[in-house]
Amino acid sequence: MNDQAADLSATRLVALDWGTSSLRAYRLGDGGRVLELRHRPWGIMHLPPAPAGEDAGTDAAFERALQDACGDWLAAAPQLPLLACGMVGSAQGWREARYLHTPTSLDALAQGLTRVDRPGGQPLHIVPGLLQPGDLPNVMRGEETQVLGVLADLPAEDPGPWLVGLPGSHSKWVVAQRSGIEGFHTFMTGEVFAALRGHTILGRTMAPADAQSGTAPDDAAFVRGLQVACGSDAGLGLLSHIFSTRTLGLTGVLPASAQADYLSGLLIGHEVAALARVHPPGGSAAPVQPLLCGEPDLCRRYALALRLQGFAEPAIAAQATPTGLWQIARAAGLPAGEAPQPSSAESLAA
Amino acid sequence: MNDQAADLSATRLVALDWGTSSLRAYRLGDGGRVLELRHRPWGIMHLPPAPAGEDAGTDAAFERALQDACGDWLAAAPQLPLLACGMVGSAQGWREARYLHTPTSLDALAQGLTRVDRPGGQPLHIVPGLLQPGDLPNVMRGEETQVLGVLADLPAEDPGPWLVGLPGSHSKWVVAQRSGIEGFHTFMTGEVFAALRGHTILGRTMAPADAQSGTAPDDAAFVRGLQVACGSDAGLGLLSHIFSTRTLGLTGVLPASAQADYLSGLLIGHEVAALARVHPPGGSAAPVQPLLCGEPDLCRRYALALRLQGFAEPAIAAQATPTGLWQIARAAGLPAGEAPQPSSAESLAA
Repeated sequence: MNDQAADLSATRLVALDWGTSSLRAYRLGDGGRVLELRHRPWGIMHLPPAPAGEDAGTDAAFERALQDACGDWLAAAPQLPLLACGMVGSAQGWREARYLHTPTSLDALAQGLTRVDRPGGQPLHIVPGLLQPGDLPNVMRGEETQVLGVLADLPAEDPGPWLVGLPGSHSKWVVAQRSGIEGFHTFMTGEVFAALRGHTILGRTMAPADAQSGTAPDDAAFVRGLQVACGSDAGLGLLSHIFSTRTLGLTGVLPASAQADYLSGLLIGHEVAALARVHPPGGSAAPVQPLLCGEPDLCRRYALALRLQGFAEPAIAAQATPTGLWQIARAAGLPAGEAPQPSSAESLAA
Repeated sequence: MNDQAADLSATRLVALDWGTSSLRAYRLGDGGRVLELRHRPWGIMHLPPAPAGEDAGTDAAFERALQDACGDWLAAAPQLPLLACGMVGSAQGWREARYLHTPTSLDALAQGLTRVDRPGGQPLHIVPGLLQPGDLPNVMRGEETQVLGVLADLPAEDPGPWLVGLPGSHSKWVVAQRSGIEGFHTFMTGEVFAALRGHTILGRTMAPADAQSGTAPDDAAFVRGLQVACGSDAGLGLLSHIFSTRTLGLTGVLPASAQADYLSGLLIGHEVAALARVHPPGGSAAPVQPLLCGEPDLCRRYALALRLQGFAEPAIAAQATPTGLWQIARAAGLPAGEAPQPSSAESLAA
């Protein structure tokens, strides 16, 4: 108990990365150092059910999830500020947070927080999402915070601009400068892969996912897929290329165990080929530097794809959400009991 | 009974269009005229179950489906020849029929039939599938027969070449001449649409399919999708474009009832844009003539897409499988009791 009390006195912020499928609660100390992390399955679509006789409403469900993740922190140090990012600010979240339009800055995000009052406790603040208007509008919730965290960790002498890739179910590619986020693209690569594997004929001849989980990814099959996406048959496009997953199996070229990796290569290859069309590597006056942030094996695969398209070797950044939440909290003046420091906006400015 | 006996005496061929989800049995008379059609749900993946005590094997299950569809024809006229095309010749079918390599001709298909002996009856003949070897191999089973049927119905003075589109779950685009089938492409457009609608976030905001079934397709939303696929943002590619189905909904531009049609436009737009890249309309010395064969509303939509890509106005062909089966049967000398005629190979030759 003494240890815990000592730890809590060093806490400056409770930072929450609250997405669709999970909740990560960080206890952050001076300078945004992670003192403790707790991971709960309480994504906004999977909140803990109400015990019999308790309030079954939305506010109560979110509060239950929060209490389960870090109720002891909040009880022992009731003055701790709370800041959350991600789908918790969507229409299906705790409270709908506004979208800021791109381009935007750290200060604009910090000034745009949405406040959720909690009876008997500190309010929860939610980071705005980003909206890029246009014929093909684009939205994000949570990734803007991750990108600010990535930028904060870059050496101050590096001027950018960067092309920050956040691969996953909906991959984001964010054009960022020291001054903030310029714009971004979304590619549904991960979710399309899962839908093709799980719900089309392509999955029927693939080795089951669990049988593969213990085996190493088949990089040769993956690279074969990458090469098709940018090779002499590139013109046929994705809807045609994916059928070759089946026919290369039928003709004995790709064994069942290699077909998922080949399909992954086709999809990631098409994503990065599109990226190269809209941000030609080496083609502009101020070439963008690619930078990857995400699950390590996925980043490794995207690095192969970027290299094949002529991009500079991408730097791989650590998971950056708590750092981003810290940057925003500081710019908003949230952290508790911290010694005065230069504003994070100044430290991020080029 | 007199009527039926009279009808059966005019029968020359039992022609079967036997796919994954259904079986169509045609009774064909002189010149391949359709005398009778029966439609059964006995696709090769959904054969009738064995009654208690009966043979549960594969041969017996296919024979049961055949007897249910046309056992009375075969009993009344046991000498009738049988010819089938489609997935009945796949590894999961009644008997695996060979693949012929492209390019190929009507006579080669007729000489490559696979024979399935049926105890106490005429054998069933199965049309070969087509295989196009290469880095992106391509296969078809059934569409080759449809294309031969389409060609047989074209005016003899039209020299071709044609680009025959068979839109559907796996769209095929077949380059065909009088002399036969040169090559083809497959696009998984229909199956990808179903997987995206049914198993990704894009489907969640769409109006349910049944609520739409009574309403007219939203052509404006469909054309908007087509235009994105070939517009100034075309470089972003399909994996990015499809996300706009969601964000145009979020921003109030596309109502729930229009999102499925927009997504359909994106996908068909990408398919036809790819087709225009590999077969540039007006770009070659002998421009190909597009020709569509399939479900009428789908053909109408593909015609819009072809027009937008600068192709000539496509002719719409009738469903042509029984005609194709008749052409192949004649070239193989199968039809019963027909007066001698010039071979169909001659009649098809330019």
